[in-house]
Amino acid sequence: MALIVQKYGGTSVSNIEKIALVAKNAINTKKNRNSVVIVVSAMAGETDRLIKLCKKVMDPPDEREFDVITSTGEQVSSGLLAMMIKSMGQDAVSFQGHQVRIITDSFYSRAKIQTIDAKCIRDAIKEDKVVVISGFQGIDENGNVTTLGRGGSDLTAVALASVLDADSCELYKDDVDGIFTTDPKMSKNARKIHKISYEEMLEMASLGSKVLQARAVEFAKKYNVPIHVRPTSKPENEGTWVVSEEEAMEAMENVQISGVTYDKNQAKITVTQVPDQPGIAAKLFSPLADNGIIVDMIVQNVSIEGLTDMTFTVPNSDFKKSLKLTKEIADKLGAKKVISDDKISKVSIVGVGMKNHSGVASKMFNCLANEGINIMMISTSEIKISCILEEKYTELAVRTLHDAFELGGKNEQ
Amino acid sequence: MALIVQKYGGTSVSNIEKIALVAKNAINTKKNRNSVVIVVSAMAGETDRLIKLCKKVMDPPDEREFDVITSTGEQVSSGLLAMMIKSMGQDAVSFQGHQVRIITDSFYSRAKIQTIDAKCIRDAIKEDKVVVISGFQGIDENGNVTTLGRGGSDLTAVALASVLDADSCELYKDDVDGIFTTDPKMSKNARKIHKISYEEMLEMASLGSKVLQARAVEFAKKYNVPIHVRPTSKPENEGTWVVSEEEAMEAMENVQISGVTYDKNQAKITVTQVPDQPGIAAKLFSPLADNGIIVDMIVQNVSIEGLTDMTFTVPNSDFKKSLKLTKEIADKLGAKKVISDDKISKVSIVGVGMKNHSGVASKMFNCLANEGINIMMISTSEIKISCILEEKYTELAVRTLHDAFELGGKNEQ
Repeated sequence: MALIVQKYGGTSVSNIEKIALVAKNAINTKKNRNSVVIVVSAMAGETDRLIKLCKKVMDPPDEREFDVITSTGEQVSSGLLAMMIKSMGQDAVSFQGHQVRIITDSFYSRAKIQTIDAKCIRDAIKEDKVVVISGFQGIDENGNVTTLGRGGSDLTAVALASVLDADSCELYKDDVDGIFTTDPKMSKNARKIHKISYEEMLEMASLGSKVLQARAVEFAKKYNVPIHVRPTSKPENEGTWVVSEEEAMEAMENVQISGVTYDKNQAKITVTQVPDQPGIAAKLFSPLADNGIIVDMIVQNVSIEGLTDMTFTVPNSDFKKSLKLTKEIADKLGAKKVISDDKISKVSIVGVGMKNHSGVASKMFNCLANEGINIMMISTSEIKISCILEEKYTELAVRTLHDAFELGGKNEQ
Repeated sequence: MALIVQKYGGTSVSNIEKIALVAKNAINTKKNRNSVVIVVSAMAGETDRLIKLCKKVMDPPDEREFDVITSTGEQVSSGLLAMMIKSMGQDAVSFQGHQVRIITDSFYSRAKIQTIDAKCIRDAIKEDKVVVISGFQGIDENGNVTTLGRGGSDLTAVALASVLDADSCELYKDDVDGIFTTDPKMSKNARKIHKISYEEMLEMASLGSKVLQARAVEFAKKYNVPIHVRPTSKPENEGTWVVSEEEAMEAMENVQISGVTYDKNQAKITVTQVPDQPGIAAKLFSPLADNGIIVDMIVQNVSIEGLTDMTFTVPNSDFKKSLKLTKEIADKLGAKKVISDDKISKVSIVGVGMKNHSGVASKMFNCLANEGINIMMISTSEIKISCILEEKYTELAVRTLHDAFELGGKNEQ
């Protein structure tokens, strides 16, 4: 008998009919001699409705009360789902963050889980109940209601799977069948991946493949929780397993890379001929950090005659603010000029396989060169190579790389 | 420095503008050197929306999950009100049933409050915060969410006022200025009462004057909590105080009765010539009780030749069902026949003063007789006399009695 944690997002429980489908799937899973714990998000649109209500009262809203209010969406959906399961003849019970005692720190709206008691869950499982937990919410050690931030329900599911020592953590997605070798909209050859490592998934997630929240994957990696990303609409289908590197490697053997991702939400800023002195980078980036702007890639060229060029990328949404701040600091530093471009994108190849295969980088650069695509910046990690290109070449680059690394073809399974 | 508990109903917080008015009133009360604890209902319509959602899933809904879901309405409004107060510069904090530790029994949807910890409220008051509490909800000793039933927020307010030893419990009403000597729609002379005793209020409440829930008044009486019924729209106005009999008596002196009430939601059933044996009433009324029908007045005539007539009233909504059940049992008991009438109403006069004034009953009967109104049934308690009349005479009877007992005139204060 296995213990399975299932998580369903807001679109999977957006109306009564969909809640019924989720209930059926949970009951079917239970019938296969499993214990089932479900984590559920608020019904699609509900969290936005509550946020709007808050902002009408106070903008930005008071943080503590914001969490009190937004956490009610999950309370309603957990109650409705438990009720639906009971109405189908399977005993069930819902629990909120304060009942499970999901204890977090006190950073409202972005609280981090610290401990989970889960006694009430274990007791309910013993009583043969399907247990439905409100995702996204917890309490701090003083009993104040907290929330984990957008996508927090994934995190709740993974954390519960870890605490309960679950056999798997199934994250049901409404709009995708699993993790693909690239965005199916970009390449018809995109193939569903059977197994992928946490590390690769993290690179995919932070690179713009938005299926899973990075925080949830990090948590799963830390506690070695096997994640199974599955489609809500076809619960009988296998999706993609996100597992340890060792386990993922077994399944891949000769695969050099696992996927091609892209991110069009990029802009780059170059500061030319900055005096190359210790502390110059700190001076340049501190104002951006102070304004909460996340700098992604940073490239510094070699110093010529004591001067250097510094290029970095920021999210498109922070572009204007970043440019203004950079110009101010560049003046102070005595840089020659500031050049910028917001018509760029980042295309990356990801794969633990590249650790053991030489020539992956040069193959990528050759591919792009053959198509006449100029590479503006390059950044690499152990399992990822990213290139900044002109935005208009994004699709071409993704398709070309996907084919060159032979990622396409029939779906595994 | 006084501690004041204020309760606002759903129509008083039905939108952001109204929540702002409530916040202002709370802040004004605070400024007059008071500590303020507010109990709030769900925004008008929200509880009904949630109930509808539940019934779509399961009808009748699972009781435990029903409370999980319906209690979220108060959680949202308490958060919004606390946020609104903070946005106006006064520190505030919201608490839910599980945080205040309002411990109830486990009868979902009609839970009874057993204990209240309230430590978090006392702490917050010390920090000079306005404290906003979700009405209607609590938890049982296992931490399950419970609700107190419709009108439960009044009860939460009175119970908190008792536990906190508050100086007064202000129940703000959106549609009335206080308690009146009779329904202002029935008599232009209706006058707002300044002080009324718990006992009278209980008789008024159960007799169809629906301003206050009987349970809340009973609780207030038991713990001697002074209730102040006030209009939300004119928070500067005094409303009606509901206080102990002694205190009410001081204010009244020579008043024979305090008010005239009526209830058109009545139907009567007579079983004629039942064998007058021990246990006959039990046999007659058990089937009604088993079906949850509340029998109000019961009149049994003297026995003639071993036979008696039994007449009783039930709510109009239960009339058909009651009639069917009564006919079945009447057959079994060998009664002659069953007569019924659902075109009746109950008109009552209420007042602790009648304890000390003789002739109140005969004055009432004379008044009605003078107008040619036939009395079908009479029932009395220490502080109340009720008559069943033909429904069409209701308004005339109320007006006549209201004038005869000199209840009209200028409002007190």
